[in-house]
Amino acid sequence: MRPSGRTPDQMRTIQITRNFTKHAEGSVLICFGDTKVICTASVEERVPPFLKGSGKGWVTAEYGMLPRSTDSRMGREASRGKQGGRTLEIQRLIGRSLRAVTDLTALGERTITLDCDVIQADGGTRTASISGAYVALCDAITNLTQSGRLKKDPIHGQLASVSVGIYQGTPVLDLDYAEDSQAETDMNVVMNDAGAFIEVQGTAEGHAFHMQELNDMLALADKGIREIMSVQQSALNP
Amino acid sequence: MRPSGRTPDQMRTIQITRNFTKHAEGSVLICFGDTKVICTASVEERVPPFLKGSGKGWVTAEYGMLPRSTDSRMGREASRGKQGGRTLEIQRLIGRSLRAVTDLTALGERTITLDCDVIQADGGTRTASISGAYVALCDAITNLTQSGRLKKDPIHGQLASVSVGIYQGTPVLDLDYAEDSQAETDMNVVMNDAGAFIEVQGTAEGHAFHMQELNDMLALADKGIREIMSVQQSALNP
Amino acid sequence: MRPSGRTPDQMRTIQITRNFTKHAEGSVLICFGDTKVICTASVEERVPPFLKGSGKGWVTAEYGMLPRSTDSRMGREASRGKQGGRTLEIQRLIGRSLRAVTDLTALGERTITLDCDVIQADGGTRTASISGAYVALCDAITNLTQSGRLKKDPIHGQLASVSVGIYQGTPVLDLDYAEDSQAETDMNVVMNDAGAFIEVQGTAEGHAFHMQELNDMLALADKGIREIMSVQQSALNP
Amino acid sequence: MRPSGRTPDQMRTIQITRNFTKHAEGSVLICFGDTKVICTASVEERVPPFLKGSGKGWVTAEYGMLPRSTDSRMGREASRGKQGGRTLEIQRLIGRSLRAVTDLTALGERTITLDCDVIQADGGTRTASISGAYVALCDAITNLTQSGRLKKDPIHGQLASVSVGIYQGTPVLDLDYAEDSQAETDMNVVMNDAGAFIEVQGTAEGHAFHMQELNDMLALADKGIREIMSVQQSALNP
Amino acid sequence: MRPSGRTPDQMRTIQITRNFTKHAEGSVLICFGDTKVICTASVEERVPPFLKGSGKGWVTAEYGMLPRSTDSRMGREASRGKQGGRTLEIQRLIGRSLRAVTDLTALGERTITLDCDVIQADGGTRTASISGAYVALCDAITNLTQSGRLKKDPIHGQLASVSVGIYQGTPVLDLDYAEDSQAETDMNVVMNDAGAFIEVQGTAEGHAFHMQELNDMLALADKGIREIMSVQQSALNP
Amino acid sequence: MRPSGRTPDQMRTIQITRNFTKHAEGSVLICFGDTKVICTASVEERVPPFLKGSGKGWVTAEYGMLPRSTDSRMGREASRGKQGGRTLEIQRLIGRSLRAVTDLTALGERTITLDCDVIQADGGTRTASISGAYVALCDAITNLTQSGRLKKDPIHGQLASVSVGIYQGTPVLDLDYAEDSQAETDMNVVMNDAGAFIEVQGTAEGHAFHMQELNDMLALADKGIREIMSVQQSALNP
Repeated sequence: MRPSGRTPDQMRTIQITRNFTKHAEGSVLICFGDTKVICTASVEERVPPFLKGSGKGWVTAEYGMLPRSTDSRMGREASRGKQGGRTLEIQRLIGRSLRAVTDLTALGERTITLDCDVIQADGGTRTASISGAYVALCDAITNLTQSGRLKKDPIHGQLASVSVGIYQGTPVLDLDYAEDSQAETDMNVVMNDAGAFIEVQGTAEGHAFHMQELNDMLALADKGIREIMSVQQSALNP
Repeated sequence: MRPSGRTPDQMRTIQITRNFTKHAEGSVLICFGDTKVICTASVEERVPPFLKGSGKGWVTAEYGMLPRSTDSRMGREASRGKQGGRTLEIQRLIGRSLRAVTDLTALGERTITLDCDVIQADGGTRTASISGAYVALCDAITNLTQSGRLKKDPIHGQLASVSVGIYQGTPVLDLDYAEDSQAETDMNVVMNDAGAFIEVQGTAEGHAFHMQELNDMLALADKGIREIMSVQQSALNP
Repeated sequence: MRPSGRTPDQMRTIQITRNFTKHAEGSVLICFGDTKVICTASVEERVPPFLKGSGKGWVTAEYGMLPRSTDSRMGREASRGKQGGRTLEIQRLIGRSLRAVTDLTALGERTITLDCDVIQADGGTRTASISGAYVALCDAITNLTQSGRLKKDPIHGQLASVSVGIYQGTPVLDLDYAEDSQAETDMNVVMNDAGAFIEVQGTAEGHAFHMQELNDMLALADKGIREIMSVQQSALNP
Repeated sequence: MRPSGRTPDQMRTIQITRNFTKHAEGSVLICFGDTKVICTASVEERVPPFLKGSGKGWVTAEYGMLPRSTDSRMGREASRGKQGGRTLEIQRLIGRSLRAVTDLTALGERTITLDCDVIQADGGTRTASISGAYVALCDAITNLTQSGRLKKDPIHGQLASVSVGIYQGTPVLDLDYAEDSQAETDMNVVMNDAGAFIEVQGTAEGHAFHMQELNDMLALADKGIREIMSVQQSALNP
Repeated sequence: MRPSGRTPDQMRTIQITRNFTKHAEGSVLICFGDTKVICTASVEERVPPFLKGSGKGWVTAEYGMLPRSTDSRMGREASRGKQGGRTLEIQRLIGRSLRAVTDLTALGERTITLDCDVIQADGGTRTASISGAYVALCDAITNLTQSGRLKKDPIHGQLASVSVGIYQGTPVLDLDYAEDSQAETDMNVVMNDAGAFIEVQGTAEGHAFHMQELNDMLALADKGIREIMSVQQSALNP
Repeated sequence: MRPSGRTPDQMRTIQITRNFTKHAEGSVLICFGDTKVICTASVEERVPPFLKGSGKGWVTAEYGMLPRSTDSRMGREASRGKQGGRTLEIQRLIGRSLRAVTDLTALGERTITLDCDVIQADGGTRTASISGAYVALCDAITNLTQSGRLKKDPIHGQLASVSVGIYQGTPVLDLDYAEDSQAETDMNVVMNDAGAFIEVQGTAEGHAFHMQELNDMLALADKGIREIMSVQQSALNP
């Protein structure tokens, strides 16, 4: 049995609140159960050096956790003077995923930065970040089109992400912290609305996993991602 | 006239939400109008090296702003690799203020860290941080006394903070960003419930201020701080 | 057609040279075609703080590229003052993979560090690193058992890694740089000798990939990893 | 009684030596008793990015202490790799104070940097720094006007700074280290020659201070600052 | 007797392998006995800021040691976040030496960076680096002249380097690690093919050395450097 | 002719002021003409980790330049976040030189740190630093013996340092900045009172130097160092 009492294929409650803060072009609070992440999208009319003069834009992400978003206090990365490997890995994943559904040429020479800041963590912060950042990105794009700065929508697909894993021998969907810390296998999946994969990252924690287990986990991920996409749609088109 | 339409001695609406996140021993969301800060208090059973074996505890603070808490995106300090001078100045102020109402010997050899993270900024983030951190600190102390780890309450005074300044020639209370960025003088005041000063930090931005102006500003601060203390009390004793 | 003229399921020539340098407990030069990585294993009789007194050991990795291992010179990370996100991501992957086949309790309170330094890069440096580091780890363990410091071999499985991807619409095995920089999908797979997965990391670069493509790539990876394991065995038991 | 035998309203001996070193446009050694600070003013014909093209100049400051300026050796900030919070706070204060008496538009697009380096510390290093930096700034301006690079003097007021505090229940002027380390309240005051405040920074160390104590301290500061200004005038117009 | 059995004026075997890696304009593996260094020369069509518009080029060097090039593992400088003093000292020496035989005006506004990476250390890594970097520099220049980017050879002298020292009272040539760690005096000498000195750096480790000892050591260095130059010539003109 | 009008073998005026600042166990201001360096010696009753339990002490040095000790302002190393290569090279040289005349076993498990801070630079800052640090070290040792913490004087030789070089074809002694910046060869020499060498560091700037030139420079250095030692003796035994 799962610690939360959920069935193996049951997601936590997903909630998406748009316009959570007032300054950003897109600002979303996304909750996967007790995991809560603020995702903001910021538009800046400049691009990194390697894109200057290319006519293309850039979508990138930064990720952080408030020091006491977790059970015991983590040192603040700003105070330690550098971002850890896990942080860099996650923000690279978020940026790469969002670029996979964005036509950078259609975006033009501007940068959209997605800041994903975890205010409360209970497992799945990176998948919540990706799923929430997608909504914030859509809002920022709408802001650009409504203000006349963009003519064509550069987003060419919907995107969401969920974790799956093997907990006590059973494939389960959307692991919370109690499961995540005990899981034998942990996998993060990013998919688009055509049901195709954008990222698949599976790690054997306790023992190696077999082809059949991989397929079972991917099937669960597919189900979960469809549910998250439905919540994203309801939030974007209330 | 003030941009917000407030009278010179009128505070913004103050709201304090306790138990805002679930992991910390104290977790408070404090709003001074559109300025919103998450203040958490974390208890750790260890002290900095200079206090080891002294029998005394420590109260300290860290401060941060989410990159898009402001009108235009600020670079993330964790990514830049260091905290700026303003950040260090503010977190030193918060820690010093809270230590002024805490009996560190009564606290015993443990550390309470107050993390003040601004999720939306509209002026007065440091005074909101101090006022919210006080409530989070009280909750952490209650947690320690209720769990039997502390016998005596080490907090020996209530504490709040507000900004005052001179805007278009007039002393005003609790400046928002529109006023703060135009003020001729900016002053942050921390007081205790006996009406005495813990910190007074006044800076002439446009022109130097005179004794009478100083006295007028301090009288406004006294009024504002009494109002904040009343909201703190309502939150702590609902 | 592949730029190298290889068939889709054809590996590059794999070469493993043991005892490449003289100081390390394990020292291997591994070549996947023109990709050349020095993998050394260093034994130290201490563990990270979180394992002190636990009776368990640790296996970790560090990764680096010589500045001119690549076509145009990269800045030296030691000179820039920090390791980039890609470096941290890769060294976390290498360490995690090797721990998956090591019984840390049987290792005892000592640390084995695998340093993987790329002297010439032509795609697949991380998979070559993992495959070579496994051999260096085996040599370090043999060193420990032969010197009587270890009684039981803590390695409980063989491990190798290869990249697969989709190049011009076709799933291909062991991508070189010419393919890697153009691939629509790039996937790194780590497997053990039981044919089970330790890591699966697939990224859609150009377009999202479907379940069938995933399965085709994993079948190629399985074939390639068996071939690498055969070369590892020949190197270890000449 | 004060450890030094001074009366409560008695300053230490103030000495100002101009042209202390030979390269800088302004170079001053200022002594407040045993506190000795070298203040140099350096003119550079460029401004920070945020002022480029604005027609305005900039006045800024950096502060440092030689490692053995204090009773026990402090680690060198250059060696530790960053400036501490106290250093950043002090150099921000010095720069802000000097800008308060400088017409940046009249200065034109150039930067004057005041370096304040403490070679011997005995309390009051920041107030000595501000008071000495003012003289160095005047010399740098004179250098600019005499060389024809500036037509109009951009300095529109005289400025000095002193510390006041409450020591053993009595308000005292210009605290030395023996008093500073025991003071119940510590306050740094910066004033101009019109007797108006530029900065007021008061901190309760032992117990909170009342309005009357604040007023007593500010009266002492006013007296002390007039005396420092007299020494500044004698130095500038010998 | 020397630990290696060599006579006092006997060099270790010197081997130089050109084209050791494939990407660099010059790539050399140089071995002084068991000391092995990869020296690559990278040409970039830009110069440091202080040379922009000067018409002159730049030759510079970076030095590193693989973590397990030594008997016990050294921390990786990229991971520690800075290059140590010894590293900076050595790379400054290498760059300075090579600039002494290069006409920077004839080179034109481009930079050649010599990366010297020690893969196995047994004493004399800096002298091997200089001697190998010279060959890599020649190859990079040949690459520039053959491709028509340079008309005139900017190298105006041959250069090599060797260490000498006093070991157990006797001046010896080309110290290996066993000698180096016990030597009373250690001296690194860089000379050109006219027999003149480019660098002389002698350090008394155990006791100070006298004029006669200095002269004996320099005579040994002269002999050794002629031998290295002969190997360089054989490598460059096979 | 030398820019200063000195003869080739003429030193600048050397002045040594002991007890320059009040806190350090040794504090010296040394002037080589316009080059002025504060050298302090600090005693700490602890040793670096590699000497713990060895019974041996340590002598080390740190070097810095005030930002405006030079003709144009240099960035402050504390602000840039790291010490440059030149700084590290010089402080390694100072520490190594002083250890050459100190019996570390006789010193016992304590550290003496020599801080050499240049307040005005005009060439020869490293040689002035070494020569002044020697006197500060003697004072710190006297402090230890007079307070009964040391029984035996661990200093077993006198030490001084001077620069020599070739300026416009002529060997000259004690170069000032005007010469140093134009010299064809620059050499720093550290000798003891037995006339033996502790460090010899010669660098060809313009053209390589020959054996005869080396000998001429070393003879000049010997003369200059004897003169500095005489000034050291007068300062120590007034």
